[in-house]
Amino acid sequence: MQIAIVLFDRFTALDAVGPHEMLARTPGAETVFVAERPGPVRNDTGTLTLVAERALADVPAPDVVIVPGGPGQRDQMENEALLGWLRTADATSTWTTSVCTGSLLLARAGLLTGRRATSHWLLLDVLEELGAEPTGERVVIDGKYVTAAGVSSGIDMGLTLAGRIAGDEHALAVQLLTEYDPRPPYDAGSPEKAPAAMVEQFRAQRHYLLQ
Amino acid sequence: MQIAIVLFDRFTALDAVGPHEMLARTPGAETVFVAERPGPVRNDTGTLTLVAERALADVPAPDVVIVPGGPGQRDQMENEALLGWLRTADATSTWTTSVCTGSLLLARAGLLTGRRATSHWLLLDVLEELGAEPTGERVVIDGKYVTAAGVSSGIDMGLTLAGRIAGDEHALAVQLLTEYDPRPPYDAGSPEKAPAAMVEQFRAQRHYLLQ
Repeated sequence: MQIAIVLFDRFTALDAVGPHEMLARTPGAETVFVAERPGPVRNDTGTLTLVAERALADVPAPDVVIVPGGPGQRDQMENEALLGWLRTADATSTWTTSVCTGSLLLARAGLLTGRRATSHWLLLDVLEELGAEPTGERVVIDGKYVTAAGVSSGIDMGLTLAGRIAGDEHALAVQLLTEYDPRPPYDAGSPEKAPAAMVEQFRAQRHYLLQ
Repeated sequence: MQIAIVLFDRFTALDAVGPHEMLARTPGAETVFVAERPGPVRNDTGTLTLVAERALADVPAPDVVIVPGGPGQRDQMENEALLGWLRTADATSTWTTSVCTGSLLLARAGLLTGRRATSHWLLLDVLEELGAEPTGERVVIDGKYVTAAGVSSGIDMGLTLAGRIAGDEHALAVQLLTEYDPRPPYDAGSPEKAPAAMVEQFRAQRHYLLQ
């Protein structure tokens, strides 16, 4: 089993590393970071560089595809090298997945048409414009398509996938070893919980925020 | 303000990337990954490579020090280049922090003696042998020393620090934008919650697990 995590310039690091941490110990699975060209890939804050070990072209048929999001997603929406790879990989994948605005790339590739899916809360309307049916759930499973909400939700998606792929016992072990018993020090992790004025401010600034 | 995140061979990726995601947007702060030598650093599963932008020697006085853990921590326990850097950096830091077994390195450097602290649940006794006073809390603050429990707890620590450094309003914004409203699909994230037999098995295997 091969698990491919896609990188592109200005991705959001936790989108990619959260699922990686939950899945990299899957028995019998090889996890690999891929990008259009192998080599260092810079994140959205410009302060973190992950290395893509292999080119997309060299990993044509992964069993699991994971597409993170981040402001750089916008630059990929017309990148046929990536979109074409997503379509090809999806043709044989067991699971096609995304975190945050990664779902907009899956949708742009035509893979989420008519499917229940999610994305970062700021961009659910864009997901709908691209043909998917947005839901308010944190992790949405529609057949083999698994999409997660914003950034940190990739951890919940990764652990969910770990259980589907390797069984509940394995997933419990991963959760215990990563001590995934979250205790957020604040309670503003969704637009329903955060201060309304802050939510509105972000909605007004969203194109600036996500560029 | 400078935030330095330390990397070493076979670190646990989420230990480092969790706090990075919560802190990299701190206004006026520069976040930098450092290692004994700059360049690529491989994680504990061998499937993820982060780039250390600068050498420890070139970042002698960060305001915030963050030490992740991981199996590779054991190889650093006699590394005076790292331990000496930790002591020097701590002399002028505002916050000296760790995630997971990173606290064993802080303790080995003599920085946690007599202080309340935590680590991965499997190694709290080692933390005590090194002179700290382990607690069962997920994020422990003792003066300027902030230690987090296993792996994923670094996200809670990072968000806590974001609030201490830049104020609650900023921390709420970070939580909302990263949609940090966790919904673990299982409830085995601590030794108290996980199946007892699994906990005992990991305790019996811990030296194997952490090497």
